Amino acid sequence: MQYYSLEDLNNLPSRDRAHFINSCTGYKSANLLGTVSKDGLTNVAIFSSVIHLGSNPPLLGFILRPTTIARNTYDNLKKTGVFTVNHVNENIVRAAHQTSAKYPGEVTEFDKVDLNTEFLNDFKAPYVQESKIKLGCAYTNEYFIEENDCLFIIGAIKHIHIAENIQREDGWLDLEAAKTVSINGLDGYALPHLLERLSYAKPDKDLKSLNKDGA
Amino acid sequence: MQYYSLEDLNNLPSRDRAHFINSCTGYKSANLLGTVSKDGLTNVAIFSSVIHLGSNPPLLGFILRPTTIARNTYDNLKKTGVFTVNHVNENIVRAAHQTSAKYPGEVTEFDKVDLNTEFLNDFKAPYVQESKIKLGCAYTNEYFIEENDCLFIIGAIKHIHIAENIQREDGWLDLEAAKTVSINGLDGYALPHLLERLSYAKPDKDLKSLNKDGA
Repeated sequence: MQYYSLEDLNNLPSRDRAHFINSCTGYKSANLLGTVSKDGLTNVAIFSSVIHLGSNPPLLGFILRPTTIARNTYDNLKKTGVFTVNHVNENIVRAAHQTSAKYPGEVTEFDKVDLNTEFLNDFKAPYVQESKIKLGCAYTNEYFIEENDCLFIIGAIKHIHIAENIQREDGWLDLEAAKTVSINGLDGYALPHLLERLSYAKPDKDLKSLNKDGA
Repeated sequence: MQYYSLEDLNNLPSRDRAHFINSCTGYKSANLLGTVSKDGLTNVAIFSSVIHLGSNPPLLGFILRPTTIARNTYDNLKKTGVFTVNHVNENIVRAAHQTSAKYPGEVTEFDKVDLNTEFLNDFKAPYVQESKIKLGCAYTNEYFIEENDCLFIIGAIKHIHIAENIQREDGWLDLEAAKTVSINGLDGYALPHLLERLSYAKPDKDLKSLNKDGA
């Protein structure tokens, strides 16, 4: 085993530390957040920190860094109150990664990176047309994380759009069927393959493998 | 495309909604949190909400539900101030899932699910021996999420242990080499395969594929 103390970590070049620490907590979700400004300029940016927060009510959270280039996302969602969360799939990995470039001034990232906007159900924020699982969310709250000046943003899920053949009998989304990717560190994109679904765990009872419908 | 409004979601049976909403934000990380009580009783529990929070200082976060069976984890880490985060890999998926069973009273989950404790560098909390990437963390802070009574727990990474042949030249951890899994919903375990690492994105510059050392 290799060992690093906090002192070892602090002595690393900052870019190496960033690669290391960004990959040490495991795989991350890969989502594109879509927003629109008051003036109608659309924005799309990749986020690897979107997490499930609760099912009832349906809530998600994500982290916004103080110096992030994704401040446009924040400004827009604060002003309009809405944003979309769109899964990155295998076919749009490069376009999704390119959204992290620091485009100067007023641009529509959708055009720059070759992704298409889609407007659904009169929802004000743009969805990513190429995405197969997309959520329409309302900005709900934010918590200032004083340890490193980040914001933890809370969003309420109001609309869900799913391509055909992804949802199973018991509500579960087959992310492999959607070709949703996961993120390894700052710049690695991985495609997961389902090993198995497992039965609800009970003390002293053997687990069994479930089929994709949850049975 | 299939469409669900918030009303549609609220009308689903609660178990179906849980499966649905737990999988709609994408893949989740798979980690075992190791703790020890004041009396020396070790505890291990699976968490799918551990996220990267920052590299400088090295910080992570995770969500704790109000009614979670993982309250032992919380009680222990509050009292001792420490916990470990251990990646779930392909070989220990079933043992990891079994930690979510509600064992009554005072038990050592490590024995119940056939995982082994490991104590390293005089750190008080137990690591999971079978895990290939493990972090020793100090409890730092908590934020009460008023939208659904969850806690967002902040941990400071103080120690990192990594098996051989997982870390690359630029600090990046090759999670595929560690056979780290990701979680799809409440009960699906998936094994990711790296598609590519991509160069730092800049406006109007083509992305290039990097090798695993980041070059």
